[in-house]
Amino acid sequence: MTKRKIEVCFSPELIHLHELENKIVVVVDIFRATSTMITALGNGVASITPVADLETCRAMQSEGYVIAGERNGQTAEGFTLGNSPLAYLDGAYANQKIAMTTTNGTLAIEKSKAGSKQVLIGAFVNLQATAHYLTSQNQNVLIHCAGWKGKFNLEDSLYAGALVSLLEENFEFDCDGAIAMKGLYESNKSDLAGFLAQASHAKRLQNHQIEADIDFCLSLNLFPIIGRLQGQELVAQMIKTK
Amino acid sequence: MTKRKIEVCFSPELIHLHELENKIVVVVDIFRATSTMITALGNGVASITPVADLETCRAMQSEGYVIAGERNGQTAEGFTLGNSPLAYLDGAYANQKIAMTTTNGTLAIEKSKAGSKQVLIGAFVNLQATAHYLTSQNQNVLIHCAGWKGKFNLEDSLYAGALVSLLEENFEFDCDGAIAMKGLYESNKSDLAGFLAQASHAKRLQNHQIEADIDFCLSLNLFPIIGRLQGQELVAQMIKTK
Repeated sequence: MTKRKIEVCFSPELIHLHELENKIVVVVDIFRATSTMITALGNGVASITPVADLETCRAMQSEGYVIAGERNGQTAEGFTLGNSPLAYLDGAYANQKIAMTTTNGTLAIEKSKAGSKQVLIGAFVNLQATAHYLTSQNQNVLIHCAGWKGKFNLEDSLYAGALVSLLEENFEFDCDGAIAMKGLYESNKSDLAGFLAQASHAKRLQNHQIEADIDFCLSLNLFPIIGRLQGQELVAQMIKTK
Repeated sequence: MTKRKIEVCFSPELIHLHELENKIVVVVDIFRATSTMITALGNGVASITPVADLETCRAMQSEGYVIAGERNGQTAEGFTLGNSPLAYLDGAYANQKIAMTTTNGTLAIEKSKAGSKQVLIGAFVNLQATAHYLTSQNQNVLIHCAGWKGKFNLEDSLYAGALVSLLEENFEFDCDGAIAMKGLYESNKSDLAGFLAQASHAKRLQNHQIEADIDFCLSLNLFPIIGRLQGQELVAQMIKTK
């Protein structure tokens, strides 16, 4: 297998500068969309349909979806679930179909479709499984950070650095974003939570008293699955990493 | 003096997400536009007018400007100077007015004007002087990286990290780009040239056999000046740093 390429895009606002053609795009929104999605899939939900707005999501309840959405740190009115990954533990929603509103995450997923070979969602909670899967595929990879309102954010970018660090043996990168974040991740991986506590988004979440969610989202390799987009739905695929 | 704020923007493609109002914007394009401009100003040129394209620049020759421009690593046809900072050493063009084409740099300067209090250009070769000046002003600061064709680049971003690192005592930052690049700079400052040798732009320049320019652009604090935009021209201002 020839060496494949890996690159990093820090924001949906920059994705038009990247070629998506024939690449596997990994979308990441650590706090909390993609972490919550992987946790839900790892706990047996049938599928997750990402939805951009509350109204569309609310309307899906009558079609049998469990609806998840949050505004300003509270479960949105009339919604069964907020955005916490913890709600899905112990198979609480196993075999059910979820419709989930996110803002940054849904936008990034939408913008990742055009021309790409495949769209995955990634998180620290399934880092190793995603790395293992990507290594097994003969495709170039683009890591697409959802960012925060179009700007660079620390947690998504550090995930990108972590994934590049795991893949560098089999991939080459001529991408400054990949070089920078691999460097930053490797300097800080012994205390990722401490370093990320400085991040602006983590501070915003702390204000909402959801430190337990933050800690959970920074846990490594809880689930041996990848999350992949199939039509409009995200579904799980088991990955044997040993 | 209250603590001022400092933030970092990684690309002109993201600058619309930042408020420029009442801020001092520091534009940086390490390889090589702003490094060359500071070197020229530090060697006594009267002014530098940044120009977006070769044709406009060429036409300024008849108005008495020394014209500087390069395409594909060669001095552009009919131009006196290329983009090398080394050409300005020893006061070679002292007291002359320069018109200089750049692509990424000029765009970043243009986009930094709207509403901002002041536009500076920055480089490693005048890092300390810029930090000293910013500390003396009671203004918030935005570091605007010129990037490479709209994308994040390593050298401009590391300059941002270096400047944040020098300013952190007097500035606060709630900006993930600033946190990330301060961290990456501080981990790599003992061998900045070695780390940056990985950068995609450095590799491109090496292909053009201008390693001497690269080394020069990574030299620290050669010139005790700031470069500031005054109308359409960049001019020098001496800074006493002791």
